[in-house]
Amino acid sequence: MSERSDARPLAILCGGGEFPLEVARAARASGREPFIVGVVGSSDPAIEAFAHVWVHMGQVGKMFGALKERAVADVAIVGVMTRPEFADLRFDWGALKRAPELAPLFRGGDNRLLVGVAGIFEREGFRVVGAHEIAPQLLAPMGPIGARAASSGAEADARVGAALLAALSPFDAGQGVVVANTRVIAIEAAEGTDAMLARVAKLRAARRVRFQGLAGVLVKAPKRGQDLRLDMPTVGPRTIEAARSAQLQGVALAAGRVLIADRQAFSRAADEAGLFVVGFAP
Amino acid sequence: MSERSDARPLAILCGGGEFPLEVARAARASGREPFIVGVVGSSDPAIEAFAHVWVHMGQVGKMFGALKERAVADVAIVGVMTRPEFADLRFDWGALKRAPELAPLFRGGDNRLLVGVAGIFEREGFRVVGAHEIAPQLLAPMGPIGARAASSGAEADARVGAALLAALSPFDAGQGVVVANTRVIAIEAAEGTDAMLARVAKLRAARRVRFQGLAGVLVKAPKRGQDLRLDMPTVGPRTIEAARSAQLQGVALAAGRVLIADRQAFSRAADEAGLFVVGFAP
Repeated sequence: MSERSDARPLAILCGGGEFPLEVARAARASGREPFIVGVVGSSDPAIEAFAHVWVHMGQVGKMFGALKERAVADVAIVGVMTRPEFADLRFDWGALKRAPELAPLFRGGDNRLLVGVAGIFEREGFRVVGAHEIAPQLLAPMGPIGARAASSGAEADARVGAALLAALSPFDAGQGVVVANTRVIAIEAAEGTDAMLARVAKLRAARRVRFQGLAGVLVKAPKRGQDLRLDMPTVGPRTIEAARSAQLQGVALAAGRVLIADRQAFSRAADEAGLFVVGFAP
Repeated sequence: MSERSDARPLAILCGGGEFPLEVARAARASGREPFIVGVVGSSDPAIEAFAHVWVHMGQVGKMFGALKERAVADVAIVGVMTRPEFADLRFDWGALKRAPELAPLFRGGDNRLLVGVAGIFEREGFRVVGAHEIAPQLLAPMGPIGARAASSGAEADARVGAALLAALSPFDAGQGVVVANTRVIAIEAAEGTDAMLARVAKLRAARRVRFQGLAGVLVKAPKRGQDLRLDMPTVGPRTIEAARSAQLQGVALAAGRVLIADRQAFSRAADEAGLFVVGFAP
């Protein structure tokens, strides 16, 4: 009989933000103690509450050495991974040996960066797993999240947004859009969701787009065909704060395909702001 | 025999900016003296160099009266048309009579606003013509504009951008995108091209997107199926200034489907900034 998959030794490569730690705690809570790879300058120092190793970007040999020493089988890559600049890297011998594989990472979209990184782990014999596989409790559910329900107008906006994101999928671009009264107000690309929402807030303040009161829906969904183990869209309390500033009516998330960080604070913030949050069938 | 089309009395409804005047001068230069409808608070006072009438937004009856008095047959709608707020309108009797036609203008995307306005002119017996029909010399030509040529990398970026804009077409969203090294950096929606380019400049300054030196192409094209008599994408010297601030390599325009304002200054600014400008087959 094969080893139970969830018993396989697990490592989490932690990018920036608090979310990787939440995933690590959820894995621990479900009885699967993770080993953490922290990236100097990116990862939260609180990773030291777990067994861990710190590496500089480019210390590929050191990282693989630490993972193999602990017989790690599964690796999750979680958190903000910024495309590093060549000059910021500290290549070790393990990186130089893999130079032909690493070079392509410096070209193309963010999705390709992560796909490339995942491929390097896989060629090294690790299985790459998604945060949602080790912490499924963090996924957006179907239906309302929090106290408010979406109006029928908001549902129509959510449908337009979902269709637009599907059309954008082949271009490895954004995972977010704001639609109000069926009009597309903002489309996310490299700036990220929070910056897009700040732009909507500015457009409304400058009366460049005009609506009475709360209007519009933030729609978040992964790119179609995207490898959900990598770079799954993630929202959190800050998303609600930004949506509130943009005077939106609510947020629509592709159920089972968007991660919610700090669910309790997220849901409470939405209720306090008077925003609906809904998971829709992707 | 029917009247020659270009001899038909012509009016230009002038939105904001200097471009409507350039179109009016081009029409005059080609021997077709236009009558100008100026919108108080929007149109450049320099329209008074032409036969003209000033109207407040909502003075639909006054406008149609002036056009009919001069036996105007063709109407071009040129320049920035902002969706007015209800409270800013000064409805006259001619507007109240047409209230059922005007009401839908306050819903939907910008494209639908203009299509709605055009429909009202047409039902009144006018023919709506595009700026490019009365001033074809303002259209982007095929091939290089200015002194520089596009690199093969920049041509690849332009192709990605053109394909993305085609995919966005059904959503009545933006007409511009920035692509660098085949990565989609920014997509335009309600904020407009200049604001999108300012965002790219900011992302680069903050090193949120990183490229060595000049990188990336602004691609402009109309939405597929868009009525080109209305709201044809327009670039000008300010576009070059914004593209320079974003450290782009150049600008790609759908030939015959994008208008260039102030071509001489536009071309000179591109040369001075070291940017290529190219018209591509749409």
